[in-house]
Amino acid sequence: MGDNDIYAKQGFGNSSGFGQHPALIIVDFVNGFDDPDMFGGGNIHSAILHTRTLLAAARRHHIAICFTRVVYADDQSDAGVFCLKAPSLRTLTESARASQIVSELEPREGELVLRKTQPSAFHETGLTSWLTHKGIDTVVIAGCTTSGCVRATAIDSMSRNFLTVVVTDCVGDRALAPHEANLFDIQQKYADLLDSEKTIAHFSGKRDHA
Amino acid sequence: MGDNDIYAKQGFGNSSGFGQHPALIIVDFVNGFDDPDMFGGGNIHSAILHTRTLLAAARRHHIAICFTRVVYADDQSDAGVFCLKAPSLRTLTESARASQIVSELEPREGELVLRKTQPSAFHETGLTSWLTHKGIDTVVIAGCTTSGCVRATAIDSMSRNFLTVVVTDCVGDRALAPHEANLFDIQQKYADLLDSEKTIAHFSGKRDHA
Amino acid sequence: MGDNDIYAKQGFGNSSGFGQHPALIIVDFVNGFDDPDMFGGGNIHSAILHTRTLLAAARRHHIAICFTRVVYADDQSDAGVFCLKAPSLRTLTESARASQIVSELEPREGELVLRKTQPSAFHETGLTSWLTHKGIDTVVIAGCTTSGCVRATAIDSMSRNFLTVVVTDCVGDRALAPHEANLFDIQQKYADLLDSEKTIAHFSGKRDHA
Amino acid sequence: MGDNDIYAKQGFGNSSGFGQHPALIIVDFVNGFDDPDMFGGGNIHSAILHTRTLLAAARRHHIAICFTRVVYADDQSDAGVFCLKAPSLRTLTESARASQIVSELEPREGELVLRKTQPSAFHETGLTSWLTHKGIDTVVIAGCTTSGCVRATAIDSMSRNFLTVVVTDCVGDRALAPHEANLFDIQQKYADLLDSEKTIAHFSGKRDHA
Repeated sequence: MGDNDIYAKQGFGNSSGFGQHPALIIVDFVNGFDDPDMFGGGNIHSAILHTRTLLAAARRHHIAICFTRVVYADDQSDAGVFCLKAPSLRTLTESARASQIVSELEPREGELVLRKTQPSAFHETGLTSWLTHKGIDTVVIAGCTTSGCVRATAIDSMSRNFLTVVVTDCVGDRALAPHEANLFDIQQKYADLLDSEKTIAHFSGKRDHA
Repeated sequence: MGDNDIYAKQGFGNSSGFGQHPALIIVDFVNGFDDPDMFGGGNIHSAILHTRTLLAAARRHHIAICFTRVVYADDQSDAGVFCLKAPSLRTLTESARASQIVSELEPREGELVLRKTQPSAFHETGLTSWLTHKGIDTVVIAGCTTSGCVRATAIDSMSRNFLTVVVTDCVGDRALAPHEANLFDIQQKYADLLDSEKTIAHFSGKRDHA
Repeated sequence: MGDNDIYAKQGFGNSSGFGQHPALIIVDFVNGFDDPDMFGGGNIHSAILHTRTLLAAARRHHIAICFTRVVYADDQSDAGVFCLKAPSLRTLTESARASQIVSELEPREGELVLRKTQPSAFHETGLTSWLTHKGIDTVVIAGCTTSGCVRATAIDSMSRNFLTVVVTDCVGDRALAPHEANLFDIQQKYADLLDSEKTIAHFSGKRDHA
Repeated sequence: MGDNDIYAKQGFGNSSGFGQHPALIIVDFVNGFDDPDMFGGGNIHSAILHTRTLLAAARRHHIAICFTRVVYADDQSDAGVFCLKAPSLRTLTESARASQIVSELEPREGELVLRKTQPSAFHETGLTSWLTHKGIDTVVIAGCTTSGCVRATAIDSMSRNFLTVVVTDCVGDRALAPHEANLFDIQQKYADLLDSEKTIAHFSGKRDHA
């Protein structure tokens, strides 16, 4: 019996659906994760290029948009256990080139830019409250890495009862086996998987959001 | 270049270490996850048997111990998106046999039993505060499933700056490929992997905790 | 210059308003807080009687309803610093008469009953996620005590970006000076104050919620 | 029967004590709250002057130190319900003079400076994780206002099971009646009240912290 069959037999892998009020969360598409010599590689750059189209559509349809960056204090006063597991994260300080959002996806006025120090975009950030303020019911996730901050964000989004969608061609990882393994887990338990074309169709089918 | 090499080159996969004040968290070892006809199978039962030894050692060394159960209200008033992805979770109510901790690991007076409705043992539970009250610096995780609640608990534990250890022979999954894939991710980014023998050596090397 | 003038001059005390999707949260109206020989007294019983009418209106208009109880484990394994400040809280165990919701306000099937160990109804409970699942934008608070769990719940509700309303005749305190002082603070900074009559008018002006 | 008698009879107002590993949290002592024409007045400036001595002692004894600032994004993308109740908070942007910590208390390298948008220093910030990383058991609070961010921080600190101390002469409010009323509530339920002299004695009686 294959893994898919085991999960299906136990009742996992159902769709949670797409609601009326989506927001787009773009996780950690910063220079350092677009650079194979830092934290990048694999299919991350390709995911950035697809996200350009997704972002343009989200703007056209007035979807609420949030970007995240990993940012540690210059004096590392907020570095913790994550920086023991992966010490090079400490280079991601406020003004470092590596922690700036990639030029392909530059945020515009009124779009939320969240600083975070941990994998999940929700952890010790204002994301939940911002989503509540906007009346959001569906969190659409692009970004990197699939096996890291995307997965952690998807778990937290679902755990907070947002309908959650991970956009398959807009998430990437430095290594493809973890990318695939995490999409499997995400689809079985936490979020629906949609490609950017289907996601954009959902955006356009919705009425505009103030 | 293999996945391990990519991660090593980028500075992942370091050890975060084992502190002076560990607690043992046993995640969701309840009847329903020990039953292949419900949510069980794979190497879960074997992990329960190994956890028996780990738990006995923890008790002998006066380590703080916490168990989690998945419990939904009888009237399902607290069922949310997780129950859309996996509707059979709804059967895990307070008095259901499936939601009781397995007899091999019965909790004793003074050991914390947490009810949860989401993957992470930390999400909307009193776990963080209990760990603070006990002065814990290291969270040792046993339980199931590796690709589900164990992984989510490990991310949250690390994100809250607890040194985190996942006990390799005391965690299990209904399917082995996700088990292995998630141990890889956990080791690279969130927690140290130790087997139960090495974990017990850490317990016994520590002085007792009140 | 009076306190009201100082706050007005500095721009506090504005109305945040009443949204389209309210929920009613009834905080800690349990037997022990209705008993002047335990944690009760002052205007708490009167607030319970007014809440009867508010609750009936909420049910008539299909408003989402949540009750909270303070509940500690029988073996006190989850008692912490709050129980150092106020040790008698430890008597509020699952089956204790003192921790049961007063008979005047008995919860019905489908209404959420949350157990908590700390002042705020939001702290380490599923309240935020439940509100998100229901699409709530406005949290209406009744309960006790005004200077304790009501105030803490109002701060957390506002901090999570829910429009927040405290129902003046449906909250009470064992002592009247703290009741008044806390209504002042709440109105200046966290929530709007409405009496039950005006709140019910808001309920009835809204369309029903599924 | 006076308020103190009612609370004493019901078992409130006990001391929670001072632990072995304190941290000092200085809440919102920024220019805007030191200016009676903005958010200041009352006894806030006096509290800043007393905090100078407390901070010097904390540094001498190598106590972990954290400052908070209220900071909203330049484009107000993170302004929510708090800014409906008090719209002038929106002026507290990253580079505004009003949101800079007062010159009397300038942070040094290695001391944590947290940005927040809500009353509590714990709400959606990295404070809890930082305290865990440092092994802190006792949170010592100075800052302003007593009836606002100090009170909210004290509730959250106690709710997270940190022994909590509010330093009476190092907290201030724009208006004295709320200052006094909130010290009463804090002492009864959340934290111990100590003056700066007694607090410093606790600092000096402890061994240094790395």
